[in-house]
Amino acid sequence: MTQAQDDLMQRSLACIWHPCTQMKDHEWLPMVPIASAEGVWLTDTSGKRYLDGISSWWTNILGHRHPVIMARIKQQLDTLDHVIFAGFTHEPAVQLAEKLCELTQLDRCFFADNGSAAVEVALKMSAHYWRNVGQPAKTGFIALTNSYHGETLGALAVGDNALYREAYAPMLMQPRFVTSPDCFERAPGTSWEDHSRRAFAHMEMALEQHAATTAAVIVEPLVQCAGGMRMYHPVYLTMLREACNRHGVHLIVDEIATGFGRTGMLWASDWAKVDRESAEPIRGDFMCLSKGLTGGTMALAAVMTTNTVYQAFYDDYASYKAFLHSHSYTGNPIACAAALATLDVLASENWMARNREVGHLMWMRMSELLSHPHVAEVRQQGMILAVEMMKNPSRRTPYPASERRGLRVYQHGLDKGVLLRPLGNVVYLMPPYVIESKEVELMTRTAIDGIHLATRD
Amino acid sequence: MTQAQDDLMQRSLACIWHPCTQMKDHEWLPMVPIASAEGVWLTDTSGKRYLDGISSWWTNILGHRHPVIMARIKQQLDTLDHVIFAGFTHEPAVQLAEKLCELTQLDRCFFADNGSAAVEVALKMSAHYWRNVGQPAKTGFIALTNSYHGETLGALAVGDNALYREAYAPMLMQPRFVTSPDCFERAPGTSWEDHSRRAFAHMEMALEQHAATTAAVIVEPLVQCAGGMRMYHPVYLTMLREACNRHGVHLIVDEIATGFGRTGMLWASDWAKVDRESAEPIRGDFMCLSKGLTGGTMALAAVMTTNTVYQAFYDDYASYKAFLHSHSYTGNPIACAAALATLDVLASENWMARNREVGHLMWMRMSELLSHPHVAEVRQQGMILAVEMMKNPSRRTPYPASERRGLRVYQHGLDKGVLLRPLGNVVYLMPPYVIESKEVELMTRTAIDGIHLATRD
Repeated sequence: MTQAQDDLMQRSLACIWHPCTQMKDHEWLPMVPIASAEGVWLTDTSGKRYLDGISSWWTNILGHRHPVIMARIKQQLDTLDHVIFAGFTHEPAVQLAEKLCELTQLDRCFFADNGSAAVEVALKMSAHYWRNVGQPAKTGFIALTNSYHGETLGALAVGDNALYREAYAPMLMQPRFVTSPDCFERAPGTSWEDHSRRAFAHMEMALEQHAATTAAVIVEPLVQCAGGMRMYHPVYLTMLREACNRHGVHLIVDEIATGFGRTGMLWASDWAKVDRESAEPIRGDFMCLSKGLTGGTMALAAVMTTNTVYQAFYDDYASYKAFLHSHSYTGNPIACAAALATLDVLASENWMARNREVGHLMWMRMSELLSHPHVAEVRQQGMILAVEMMKNPSRRTPYPASERRGLRVYQHGLDKGVLLRPLGNVVYLMPPYVIESKEVELMTRTAIDGIHLATRD
Repeated sequence: MTQAQDDLMQRSLACIWHPCTQMKDHEWLPMVPIASAEGVWLTDTSGKRYLDGISSWWTNILGHRHPVIMARIKQQLDTLDHVIFAGFTHEPAVQLAEKLCELTQLDRCFFADNGSAAVEVALKMSAHYWRNVGQPAKTGFIALTNSYHGETLGALAVGDNALYREAYAPMLMQPRFVTSPDCFERAPGTSWEDHSRRAFAHMEMALEQHAATTAAVIVEPLVQCAGGMRMYHPVYLTMLREACNRHGVHLIVDEIATGFGRTGMLWASDWAKVDRESAEPIRGDFMCLSKGLTGGTMALAAVMTTNTVYQAFYDDYASYKAFLHSHSYTGNPIACAAALATLDVLASENWMARNREVGHLMWMRMSELLSHPHVAEVRQQGMILAVEMMKNPSRRTPYPASERRGLRVYQHGLDKGVLLRPLGNVVYLMPPYVIESKEVELMTRTAIDGIHLATRD
């Protein structure tokens, strides 16, 4: 470590409380000071480069400092920085909302600042909708076990991760958690489709029993990301959409991590068709977007919804039916410009085809781990590939969390110049879409070697 | 209205759900399409200009597109857009945290994306602190009546505004609300100081009875902004700080709207001294910052806290005491660069003195309303001046909310090219600090005329 690196690390540790971190770990774990970034590469203050194998928490889908996005932000800075978004509007927000409506096939866009806030908006809008249409008892939510939807108290409440949630239990509303269709849990010989289809019985039962007091079901489509990149079959979403319609319950689709092409389709929910015969993909009554929305440049979120929902709030002022939620920077023009540029780049070539190709290459390399004695599963959905390490896969004995095997992979990655950040014992690859073949080689080789090292003893 | 204006307005109304708005109002109320902004001026698509008398929801403290801030954002775009902030750090975040620690005289900075998230972080950190030090029963909160702290479910829960809160009651944790020291409610002949001091009895009682189950008291220092710019005397904060210490309860100071010089001191809490003899201002155990932090350019927030709090989370990994809250864009370099530039501009001249001068000018003009038959109070704290309209001030008869008198002032303002956005019957001025004298004349004249018009019948 150079003096410059060490200085910035020490200064950071002296005054910053970093997110999602036991700060004491940094007594021995280096805090890496980044000076610049471009494409898939982060460069630290000593000039060492790291391949951003997780798109910096899944945000930089087009890599870092994409020239089109940088240029559009600069242009926006030359005209309009910001304006209150109640009673006022502007071209960047209108264009962005129009494009998002077109791309999602939903009708309305409500802006927020981050994924947590987007989830809060969807939860509030759903319960408020039922109140406005004369069903005020529908204030509850159904969520899946092992889900994650953010960390403000409303979003945290509908997530099922004890590590994030337990300390705040008395402050949280209590949703109903229904067994996830997570296919890692399938019985030997059972297909993903069969497992997910059978798991739906839990959801059907919950809806049958509690529809009268339930506003919405909230799910991450296809991949429970923070929950260890656990995956399920799209048939579950098809069944869920049909059941929500039948029971009169909203469906909130949290595409914050999976949206904008990550799974090989523009939206993960595009993999689920409304029925076997149809080519039409299912849609949530609410769709939460953030992370990749600005191409990894700044905080912005959007909640897309239907005109049916919108109309239930549209009334004379005196009815007090309005949705009064607001954040100061709602519809911020600079962030909207970044998002518009991101959507333009996404439309400029066939990224979905490219992502499937890159995904295939990732699979070709990582599938050598299928025979590894401490690998229980290699699973993939488009540009998300995950490897689950286990002490004894055949007996389903996990490594104890205290052994922190994933951390060894993280350290190996740093050493070799690849940013991997395992979730417990799950090592995953979620690189920017612009990654080149030889970078895929470096990333996969580093991950494979790291897994060998981490499971050696 | 020109064709261009009308087009953009219609496009906005067709796809966007605007915040804090009954959208049906826009069947007759124009939605103003803004094309550009500079200094205190917003310019719409037809070229008409509006003086931003409320700093676009209190964010653009240095006006729009301040050249120093714009240049620093562009510079940042040329080096580092974003990087995950767990395990990684960078110069803009470190510099910003160092400056905020210095300016607040607190020890630690935790970044978030907006004011609501900052409040959620403070609430969660406080309760989690007590759990970590072996007092897990301390999970409750005390807040003031008429308070506002944001709209995600945790922040919303500690706010006391039925309009924002009522529809979501079943989803909210229940804090204890204690009577606000709001001096609008003082008896005739009572001084602000006496009123606020007496009001403290309610807080003292709540703390005496509930300290064992209370994590923190949360307040907006001196001005309850969204609650109609109601104000109170700093003696309340002095007493509150002392009582929180005595009862072992945290104090969360929400400086989101009041911070960065708005009240004529850098922090509103600077007006409150730890005791009569001391020059030392009180400090919260948590201080929430946002809005003006980036000079009105983009979403960013920070929660400042003490080393005492930090140390209670600092432990071996296996203790599971870490604060795992995170947002994808935590510590975003672009937003940090905007904030650093804002702090540099704030340090570049004596804005506090200037703000007091401008505040004095605002008072000189607006105080002509003191004798107005429908004005119950003209009150001020630095660069916040508020006029409370009432049907019959001597009998304390308010105008019914349904008459929407404030909206008439808003419409008059738009007509005359001044953005005023009354809170119910309270018209307030909260302009960017860069406002010039002749702009103060236009703003105050428009507000005064608007109030005359709005109270004519």
